[in-house]
Amino acid sequence: MSNYNAVSQDLIKKLAEIIGDKYVISDPDRMDPYSHDEVTDPKYKKMPEVVVLPANAQEISQIVKLAAANNVPVIARGGGTGLTSASVPFKGGIVLSVERMNKIIGIDKENMFMEVEPGVTTGDVQKAANEQGFLYAGDPCSGDSSFIGGNVATNAGGNKAVKYGTTRHQVNGVEIVTAEGEIVTFGGKCKKDSTGYSLLNLVIGSEGTLGIITKCYLKLVPLAKNVMDVLAVFPDLKTAIGIVPKIMSAGIMPMCVEFMDNESIKCCEKFLNEKLPNSENGYYIIISIEGDNEELLEDQCVTIDEMATEHGAMTVLAADPARIWKARKAYAEADRARSLIFSMEDLVVPVDKIPQTVEKIAELGEKYNIAIHCAGHAGDGNIHANILKDQLSDEEWNEKLPKLQNEIYTAVYQVGGKLSGEHGIGYKRVKLLEQYANPVELKMMKAIKQALDPKNILNPGKVIDIG
Amino acid sequence: MSNYNAVSQDLIKKLAEIIGDKYVISDPDRMDPYSHDEVTDPKYKKMPEVVVLPANAQEISQIVKLAAANNVPVIARGGGTGLTSASVPFKGGIVLSVERMNKIIGIDKENMFMEVEPGVTTGDVQKAANEQGFLYAGDPCSGDSSFIGGNVATNAGGNKAVKYGTTRHQVNGVEIVTAEGEIVTFGGKCKKDSTGYSLLNLVIGSEGTLGIITKCYLKLVPLAKNVMDVLAVFPDLKTAIGIVPKIMSAGIMPMCVEFMDNESIKCCEKFLNEKLPNSENGYYIIISIEGDNEELLEDQCVTIDEMATEHGAMTVLAADPARIWKARKAYAEADRARSLIFSMEDLVVPVDKIPQTVEKIAELGEKYNIAIHCAGHAGDGNIHANILKDQLSDEEWNEKLPKLQNEIYTAVYQVGGKLSGEHGIGYKRVKLLEQYANPVELKMMKAIKQALDPKNILNPGKVIDIG
Repeated sequence: MSNYNAVSQDLIKKLAEIIGDKYVISDPDRMDPYSHDEVTDPKYKKMPEVVVLPANAQEISQIVKLAAANNVPVIARGGGTGLTSASVPFKGGIVLSVERMNKIIGIDKENMFMEVEPGVTTGDVQKAANEQGFLYAGDPCSGDSSFIGGNVATNAGGNKAVKYGTTRHQVNGVEIVTAEGEIVTFGGKCKKDSTGYSLLNLVIGSEGTLGIITKCYLKLVPLAKNVMDVLAVFPDLKTAIGIVPKIMSAGIMPMCVEFMDNESIKCCEKFLNEKLPNSENGYYIIISIEGDNEELLEDQCVTIDEMATEHGAMTVLAADPARIWKARKAYAEADRARSLIFSMEDLVVPVDKIPQTVEKIAELGEKYNIAIHCAGHAGDGNIHANILKDQLSDEEWNEKLPKLQNEIYTAVYQVGGKLSGEHGIGYKRVKLLEQYANPVELKMMKAIKQALDPKNILNPGKVIDIG
Repeated sequence: MSNYNAVSQDLIKKLAEIIGDKYVISDPDRMDPYSHDEVTDPKYKKMPEVVVLPANAQEISQIVKLAAANNVPVIARGGGTGLTSASVPFKGGIVLSVERMNKIIGIDKENMFMEVEPGVTTGDVQKAANEQGFLYAGDPCSGDSSFIGGNVATNAGGNKAVKYGTTRHQVNGVEIVTAEGEIVTFGGKCKKDSTGYSLLNLVIGSEGTLGIITKCYLKLVPLAKNVMDVLAVFPDLKTAIGIVPKIMSAGIMPMCVEFMDNESIKCCEKFLNEKLPNSENGYYIIISIEGDNEELLEDQCVTIDEMATEHGAMTVLAADPARIWKARKAYAEADRARSLIFSMEDLVVPVDKIPQTVEKIAELGEKYNIAIHCAGHAGDGNIHANILKDQLSDEEWNEKLPKLQNEIYTAVYQVGGKLSGEHGIGYKRVKLLEQYANPVELKMMKAIKQALDPKNILNPGKVIDIG
């Protein structure tokens, strides 16, 4: 259908009656920050018709009911740190920011759960867990500013996913507001559940298209007493990635296993204006291990060092986390400093397919004469390929990028890979999903969206387009 | 609708054309084993109209298309070890056993995955993993005879779920045949995936109602070199369960944490005809820990021993797994020996709510004058309450059981619990789910079933009844 109504003055008045005047924003200057996420390309910007800042699930319920009755979309928004424009209102409508719902409701130490509102930053969740001797294992790179609700909505990944899984694995329950404006909880504090279909897991990663998350039950794990980091530098990516299964088969379960290709290292070196180890020709593997027993961890570091050296590492550095993580943490920022506009791909492949995939990407970069920097989560096959616009004109960029992406994803799908490891589909990848997902899978996704949101009110045109 | 057609001779002929004469069974004697699962109550038995034993997904696809065209249900069946009559054809139709699809397709050591057909027993999966130095962490008690496909379809739990999660957490991908007879794969060998809705997780635990599982991609983890077991006996259940969070907060992540109430211990003692420790008045907690470093594990055993003793344990035994696990493993069999007909409840509550829940169940047992034995997975709040028919007449049993169950589940839901931790809803608990699930959740489950299987062909009347 897609024939939504415009947000009328009357609707704005009714929204103000629900949540109070000061929490309804319609002034363009104040709405501007809600018109985009972290994607810097101006074509992924769209001004909301109105922004609302509700205080609780009851208010969200009323807003959704009102929107549905008026045939106006509702686009839920977290911290705005998304990388797929999932929270941008391309079909118009009400942007609903959960920023005021930022309370940590409670920490249940006995059952090891934290109950939070969706607008708490991931960093605050982590801090609150640490203060009680626990770890919240979700750890996306944007954690300082991303909201936990957004993490759940996109099934965010991050550095610790190799050991702990993605956000999906940290979430035991959610309360949502449905497309009909009903409030319902899936899961909760039971550690197991085989009570019917897992609607919990369906909502996780659905990017606000099947329900608006209003509360999360997060799992906590004991906080390890020690963390140690190792940087191993290899002469090529294949050798570098080859170390990953060897370490795991040796019974070491790292918390993080990251990689950076040589172009990324060079770009970071320039950005940081500081010499990085073996930047001339090195490929980095960064490993963090954690545990309570310091001696055992030191033994594991020695084992990793020995294995890496035997496996052809040129340099192995340990025990200086600031130095070791510096380049990896500067990766996205360094690319942005070089080229304000870039496309961050988030592809994922089986771990052993990383080398050939990165090689293929490098080849394609040369073919199109476009710089592509690869880094990411080696432990789970998640490659961030930053495709840099650099000096290309808008015309050239808009013509070349889709062709390049198509060649990349053709290669990715040939080795059993997928479009997104952790950023989601959002708006940016809807067409790519149409193209690369199995048609049966796509049909089933659409049938589910249609069944749960027949008016297509919740974040329409994201993930899949049934409009 | 529910107005299915009977399986005609013509349909049987067509089935034989698809899979071959010898794999179509219509002789009642040979069909009898397919008329029930492990539930011994005769009212949960129903003879199939025909049983088919396909060899692969292509044959299943053709069978489902044929069934849909003829308006005949298809009921997928694994090892027949279910406890909810999920695979019994109460609405008639074709029982489709995957017993011939019993190949381990391959073990990918680099990526740590095993690709299997659904008819492989869980035990064979575990064995094959162990032989390559890996652990397959799914471990339902019926593992020797249950099929991996059935484990996935019910999201089976088991002893190791406290550390590794349920079957859901061991499965990275499935191939299914949809209600339209299409073959599609969700997930695969990518360790991360945020590429649209998680249909993988929707299918896991859907008990053959949304698709028939024809292949599974299972995660493997490194096999720990050592396992150690501890039995701690406490004077009451509250004290016993109280030790669980203490151990976990001490940074020890056990692989198993099981419990048994005193009635269960006594029943096992009688069944085994052998004195069990503190059987007069004890409550058992059984803990297994695993790791590569033997010394560290021994230290952890000492810590557990000290914590348990300080916490009021009457006896702590270590290092004799056969003796320690004997009673727990005999639990269901002992109850069956005492009362052939019994109802095994599979409720799950937040861990700290186990004691009050088990106390409430004991109270209700007294009120109804029915013996109820509780044991289960203390680490994840999963209580198996065996309600024994004993000498009750069928009339008394059929009258009292639903009332007793209603009182139990009212108490369970009051503390945030659920109907099933690991056995699923199947047929036995459909009415209970109607009664206890949130109506919005139920409505959404039905909308999904309706959207993905509009003809209601796949295992109708199980989990939810849209007929």
